[in-house]
This record gives sequence, structure tokens and C-alpha cells, in this order.
Amino acid sequence: MIATTTLHGCSLINGDWTPGTNGEITGFDPRTNDRLEPAYSLANSAQLKQAITAAKRAFRSYRLTTPEERADFLTSIADNIDASAEEIIQRASLETGLGTARLTGEIARTSNQLRLFAETIRTGAYHRVRIERGPRVDLRQRHIPLGPVAVFGASNFPLAFSTAGGDTAAALAAGCPVVFKAHNAHPGTAELVGKAVQGAVEKHSLDAGVFNLIYGRGVEIGQELAADPAISAIGFTGSRQGGLALSQTASQRAVPIPVFAEMSATNPVFVFPGALEGPDASEALADAFVLSITGSSGQLCTKPGLVFVPRGLAGDAFVELIATKFTQSSGQTMLTKGIAEAWQRGVDTLHSQPSVEVLAQGTAGPGANAPGPVVFESDIQVLLNNAILQEEIFGAASLIVRYDSPTQLHDAAEALEGQLTATIQATQKDIKDVSALLPLLEDLAGRVLFGGWPTGVEVGHAMVHGGPFPATSNAQSTSVGTLAIERFMRPVSYQSLPEELLPSPISEANKWSVPREIDSY
Amino acid sequence: MIATTTLHGCSLINGDWTPGTNGEITGFDPRTNDRLEPAYSLANSAQLKQAITAAKRAFRSYRLTTPEERADFLTSIADNIDASAEEIIQRASLETGLGTARLTGEIARTSNQLRLFAETIRTGAYHRVRIERGPRVDLRQRHIPLGPVAVFGASNFPLAFSTAGGDTAAALAAGCPVVFKAHNAHPGTAELVGKAVQGAVEKHSLDAGVFNLIYGRGVEIGQELAADPAISAIGFTGSRQGGLALSQTASQRAVPIPVFAEMSATNPVFVFPGALEGPDASEALADAFVLSITGSSGQLCTKPGLVFVPRGLAGDAFVELIATKFTQSSGQTMLTKGIAEAWQRGVDTLHSQPSVEVLAQGTAGPGANAPGPVVFESDIQVLLNNAILQEEIFGAASLIVRYDSPTQLHDAAEALEGQLTATIQATQKDIKDVSALLPLLEDLAGRVLFGGWPTGVEVGHAMVHGGPFPATSNAQSTSVGTLAIERFMRPVSYQSLPEELLPSPISEANKWSVPREIDSY
Repeated sequence: MIATTTLHGCSLINGDWTPGTNGEITGFDPRTNDRLEPAYSLANSAQLKQAITAAKRAFRSYRLTTPEERADFLTSIADNIDASAEEIIQRASLETGLGTARLTGEIARTSNQLRLFAETIRTGAYHRVRIERGPRVDLRQRHIPLGPVAVFGASNFPLAFSTAGGDTAAALAAGCPVVFKAHNAHPGTAELVGKAVQGAVEKHSLDAGVFNLIYGRGVEIGQELAADPAISAIGFTGSRQGGLALSQTASQRAVPIPVFAEMSATNPVFVFPGALEGPDASEALADAFVLSITGSSGQLCTKPGLVFVPRGLAGDAFVELIATKFTQSSGQTMLTKGIAEAWQRGVDTLHSQPSVEVLAQGTAGPGANAPGPVVFESDIQVLLNNAILQEEIFGAASLIVRYDSPTQLHDAAEALEGQLTATIQATQKDIKDVSALLPLLEDLAGRVLFGGWPTGVEVGHAMVHGGPFPATSNAQSTSVGTLAIERFMRPVSYQSLPEELLPSPISEANKWSVPREIDSY
Repeated sequence: MIATTTLHGCSLINGDWTPGTNGEITGFDPRTNDRLEPAYSLANSAQLKQAITAAKRAFRSYRLTTPEERADFLTSIADNIDASAEEIIQRASLETGLGTARLTGEIARTSNQLRLFAETIRTGAYHRVRIERGPRVDLRQRHIPLGPVAVFGASNFPLAFSTAGGDTAAALAAGCPVVFKAHNAHPGTAELVGKAVQGAVEKHSLDAGVFNLIYGRGVEIGQELAADPAISAIGFTGSRQGGLALSQTASQRAVPIPVFAEMSATNPVFVFPGALEGPDASEALADAFVLSITGSSGQLCTKPGLVFVPRGLAGDAFVELIATKFTQSSGQTMLTKGIAEAWQRGVDTLHSQPSVEVLAQGTAGPGANAPGPVVFESDIQVLLNNAILQEEIFGAASLIVRYDSPTQLHDAAEALEGQLTATIQATQKDIKDVSALLPLLEDLAGRVLFGGWPTGVEVGHAMVHGGPFPATSNAQSTSVGTLAIERFMRPVSYQSLPEELLPSPISEANKWSVPREIDSY
């Protein structure tokens, strides 16, 4: 028996669940396209303003909380999410069509992510303290939180990149209150997770404005939120169009603010001849490739949408294996009807390009919005001459690009737009060619893989989930891993302050035992 | 006898001094408004493109140089500048009106800055390496250079913020080639320093495209440079108008790039009652204040343009002291006729505001463009109600703002635009009030000082010369100090690469002995 919370169906503003007065929406079961109860009332501009004002007020006290207080708060959010796991998974599966195994993993990812940030702020290196007791002046540098952050939930990760996902965790860890704009495709999931955050806010007696959850008309409320003078930064995961609109708004404010938008990538995979030596190697590679496309219905930011395969017998055999496996595959329910339709448009567009062939397509899955996964084939010269082949198709589709020589891969790496990932499939015999290509891949992407497939994104200290435009709007950052805290902080230097005025991390006493660079670097 | 180099009077493009075909300019002696020989021919668009193309090509090899090679290169630039110090100082003084003492200091600052960056990259922490040998994958994160950087020289620091100044040093240290746009007010100085850089490029057999020096029509060539697809980032020190124009261009590119523009600040100083106790304290404070306004003719980004002084007898006496000292002061030559005219317009505008009085003005200095330093007085309520009082007047002018109670300072701190610095003048008896104000000052500025005046900017590891908009276009950075290297780098994660493919800083061998966070943070 799963406990079922009565859903409020409205926004969390300054600690209160507040009915909106700007119309309503519901979630939909993408398996049937049926509406899901309850309806969610949408906040109007005044209500959004209340939430932002609450976040601004909360910043005054929240930024002064100790790392211990903040870490305990994050841990409580994680505990609350875990305690409600079954209910959250049930609702999220209803609203997104994602299976319970995937969602169970995503719950663990989300709560572990919060705990990792808690551990990180306890350790204290994120203050980035440098102390120089110079001959003329005493200088102490640390990083401080920026202020209230607007976070936009992603469609494809209703938990790990949504209400209490990476951006929210990073902002709260940094000391920034959050105004979270729920994704309209999974409103109930957002509310359940929002309750987990609210419970933690209350448990630790924090200002109620530390976390606000807003339901609203997507584009309008999003632009208002981004434009508000009290908002100091934006975290976004979604479409290129959405990310660019937010970037434009942020840059045109009286006081521009940073936008960390993760937008669009095709995540090229470069298969070198060595990787296809021996039928077992090709078989394993083909299996892993098909899985990385069909898992989560291909709705992952790091889905490998371009796979460069050498011409020749081994390449032909590999492509044939892929064709067979795609033909045997079947579709899974996509997140929404709209996303399934966009996938179909993308597939049709690619199909209509000259010299692009459908290599294989699987069968549609049961229910609505579960089209059969599709794989295309084309040639590297065709790719280089037609930018449409580079466009991301969100969902289970990929394009095999055949090439003749490794030097062509250099042309491709230079012609491709910025990417989240670039993957090398190779063995020892390819090392020389791989070495030559590697610097170009570093310039192309935020993460370079050798072997494996890019769809697994570890949450840790050394991850970069980011990359050059249009993969993100800010390549100098990551949206996964603890480096993400730096998105929401900035450096301040303190010159010759007396000990009693110095904030703890840069005081002589250093009672939080923060690691520091002293008189060196 | 100072050796006098024959000046080429043209741009350095891909290693060659190349006459421009887009008209010419000369420098001027601001003491007389006389033209200075030689004329400088201006690069056209095609020539600019050649320089950018050379920088792009050079990036391929320059980014792969070892820290040792790059450090030696920076050190050679420093040595070359020091070797030509007398000639550079002579020319810079002619072109800017700055005195030889100030310029001698600026030479040392410039070459020491280069040496500090050299030392920093030898130490290696700037790679920011994190290694996580996880159970599933091996992840290694480091920071890599962004690509060719466009740097715009400042009017007020012909050396330390110009040709081989902070942005150039940081970019070259990071591994990024530079296309430097010379400031048209000191073309000869730019060429002499450019020769120092060119000599170091040649000595170390680097690609000639690593450093390019462009003379051109300011706004046009600047916009073209900022818009070029091969440019990856922009460093700028100058006016708000100039910085905003570059930011706008950068954000509207097909691929937007980061802009690090240092623009405009009034650098408020908050004088608390304790600081005025005793005539000696007030006298010393007034002396230091006048010096910070009149030194370098007030043409410093960190000039204290707003000084909050308490009402009451001690405050009145302090203001009277300031009036006396300003009356006794005399003007020094400003950088250019245009800057002197802009100063006069700013002074006139402030003078015309209701309830703003001229407290005192010094006498004009000898020669042209040396107006007498001026100090105004007004009230905090007037400031809060009139945004014009917040506008920076570049040059020797400042506004004393009288206040009644420390709580009014909170209102002021919240109403002020973002600042490079915020300074506290106080003693033990003010600590409680200062403590309450401090968090607001942290949110306001990039550097908070206790005592002293903000015009000294130490070059070190713990300095922040930056701050919230409009002080800069990117508060998450600094233009002075070694943290500036991060402007021109971005994180990349390497997943499961074999040792022989791993770049040195993240390889097991770690032959450069880079400090690294391994399996922890």
C-alpha cells in the first residue's frame, strides 16, 4: 500500500500552498493521453512576485546559515524524498510514462545528489578561500552566494533535474534561495517533491521563502521570472529555443544575470576500426548502442545521436548488426504527446534530406506515444554539407555517419556544434589516430569518453555535464556534480578587516575548519 | 640616454608589422593637445581577419605547450618590458600625461604581474584537477583554455591594463592566443610593449599568431573583433557604454561568448563616527582621501566617488578639513582632451542637480586638460531620490554624502548599483553597526575594505577586482590577480581514457606534479 497524499494542485509561495488565479492545467498519462487529477491552478504575476519577494527576503538569513545548518537541510530533503519514494515514483510514472525501475534509480540519484552537496559544503572547499597576509594589506578571498535563483524543471528527468534536482541542490548548497518553475508535464511529481523540500524548510526553521514552487503558463511566467530584478541567476534544462529565450531576456535586463541553460546536443560517437575487430566486439558495441538509444525512449540529453562508423567490411557488418537490433526493438512511451509529435517531425525532416536513408526502425510499443526507434544512415560528406543532419532529435533516433579515413573525423569535429559529450570507440591499434583527434574533441565537448556510451552521467566531483554552445549557454560550468555550486557563487575579497568582522571561513579562528590556501596558491 | 626605437606605426599581424589601409591616427600630448609622431595606420577588416585567423591557428599548438614553456614565455615578456622600461615610460608619459613615478610603478606592476602568472602556472593548481576513480567509471576533470581572446586596452593604465596587462597575461597563462586592440590614446606605448611580447614569442619559437596587436577605428574594429566566430572570449576595461556594446554584440552572435568587461563604479566609502574621533584621525583620513582623489588625476576605476559622512560636529569638522585640502590642491593633466571634457560634463551635470553643492575646488594645473579637483556635498536622501548622483565621474571629483544614522547606510547600500569596492572607515566603537552593514556591502561589491582607500589594487592570489553589474559585466570573475586565469578556461571531464591518452595534468604519471584532488574534494 502506498500512502497517497492529497495533492493541493497549486503553487507553494512563501511557505503556503496558494491557489492560482490564472487558469489551470493538468498532467496527462502519456500512455493514454488521458488527463490526470487534480487540476493545477496557475500563479498570476502578482503571485509570482510574492514568491520572488519571499526568496529575496529569505536570502538575508539563508546566506548566513552555517554549512552545518545548510547540510542538515539538504540531508532532510533527501530523507523526505526517500521516505516518499514509492508515492513519488507512482505519480511520476503516471505523468511521464517512465518505468518504475528507471524512476527508482532516479529517486536514488536525486537524494544521493543532495547528500553529496551536503557533504561538500561540510568539507568547505567550495568557499575557495585564499588568504594573503601581504606586506601592505591583508587580503582574504572567498566565494559568496549570488542571491535568489530561478530554476526551471526538465521534462525528461522529473526528479534529478527538476524540483529538488541538480540546480536546486547546487543553489541551496551555495546559500541561494530557489524559485522553482515546475514543468507542466509532471505537476503532481513536482508537488510531492516540493512537499519534501517544504518539510525540510520547516524542520530546520528556515525562512519559508528559501524554496518556492510555481505553476504557471510556461513561457510567460518563465520570462517574468527571468526578468525580475530580485533574481540573480537562472538554471534551466530543456530545449534550445527555451534556453535561448531565457538567455535573451537575462541579457536585456537592466542588470543582466548569468544563465546556465543546458539545451541541445547530438553527442557524437567516433568508432575507430580497432573497435570493430572481432564479431564479439561488434556485437557488444551494437547491443550497447541500441540500449543507449532505446533506454528512456532516447529522451536523454546525452543520447548518442551521431555515430561515425568506418566504411569497409567491418563497418558494414557493424551497421548490419545495428539494423537487425533496431528492427527487433520496440518503442516505449514518450514523455508527452507533444514530445512524441516533435520526435516524429524531427524524424520526418531527417528522412526528407537527400542521401539520408532509414537503416531500420523498430515496432511501436503498446499504447499512445510509443513510436518504434529509428536509425538512419548517411555519409560524412553529406553531414558536412547539410546542417540539418546535426539537429538533435529528442527521442529514440540516431544517425550513422560513414567515413573513409580518420582525417575526415577532424573535419567533422571542427564542423560540429558544441556538445555535452564526445565518445571514442577504439583500441590500442587506433591510438595514434585517436591522439590526433583528442584535442579537437576537448574543444568540442564538456566530457570526452573512451569506450562506453555517454548516456550514463555520474554524479560526483569530477563530472562535467556541460559544454560549448549550443550544448549549454555557459561552457564554463556544469549542471551535474559538485562543481555546479560555483554557478551560484562569486568571489569577494576582504581587505584588512579585523578578526571580529571576518566571516568564519576567512577568519583566523576558522572554526568551521575550511581548507584554505594561505600565502600561496 | 634612452635608446629610442623607431616606431613602425602599424599593427602586428601574425608576427609582421603591417601597415593598415583604413586611415590613420596619432597620439596626442595631453599637456599641449599637440599631435605626436608617428602616425599609426589603421587595420581594415581583412587585416583584422588575418590577425584573428593567425590566433586561431596558433591556438592549436599554443594550448598544447607545457606550463614550463608558457611560464618561460611570460617571464620573457616581463624581462623585455623591464629592459625597455625607460623608453616605455618616456613614451607613455608623453601620450598620457601620467608622471614618471606613477609609470615606473606601473611598469613594475605589469612585469611582476606577468611573473606572478608564470609562477602560478608552474605551480599548476590552475588546472583545477579532480580525479575520481569510481566503481563504474574513471572520471578526471581539468580546466582547458577557451580559445583566442580579444583584449581591449584601457585608457587609464597604458601598461598594467593594456597590451601586456592583466587580461593578456591571464589569457596567455591559460593557453589562449590574444588579439589585442590598442587604445588609440597611447599607440606608441602599445607598440613598444607589443615589441616586448613579439620578442618573447620569437625567442620561444611560438606560433606568431599567439599575439596580435591591432590599431583600428575604436568602435567599428572592436565590434568586428567581438563578433568574429574565432574569438572565444573578451576582456575589456573601459566605459560602461563600451562594455555594454561589446556585451550586446557577444550575446547576439550565433555562438555567444563570455565578456569580462570592467566598466563603472563610484566605490562608496562609509565613514562611521568612530573614525572621526580625535583631530589627528580626521586629519589623516582627509589627507588620504584627497590623495586618493587627486592621484592619477582621479582616473582610477577604484576612485572613491561617494563618501558617506555622519552629520554632527565631528562630521562637519571633517568635511571642513576636506574642503580646505581640496581648495589647496591643484589639477594634474588628464589622459586626453576628450576625457577632460567628459569630466567637465559630469561635474556640470552633478552641479546642476538640486541640493548638490560644490564644497570646494582646487586650482587648475599647468598646461591643458588639468582641471582643479572638485568635491561636492549632498544629503543621503537626495542621493536615494536621484540616480544621477550615483553616476561615475571619471577624474578628480567626489561627492560627500551626509547621513544621520547608520540605518540610512543600509538603504544606501541597497540602492547603489554594483561596485568594485566598498570601504568602511570605523573603529572598535562602530563594530556593531559595521557588522550589520557588512553583508550588504558583500552583496554590493567585489572587494570590501576596512580602513585605507580603495585606489590601491594589489596584484595577488586573493585580490578581486570585479563586482556586480555595472561594475563589471560578469561578477563571477576578477580582472586583477591570479583567479583571472579562470576567465579564459572551462572544465572538461575525461571518462575512462587510457593512461597514454590522458593529458599530463590528469594522467597517473602526473609528470608536471600538478596538485590534484583525488577521490575527494
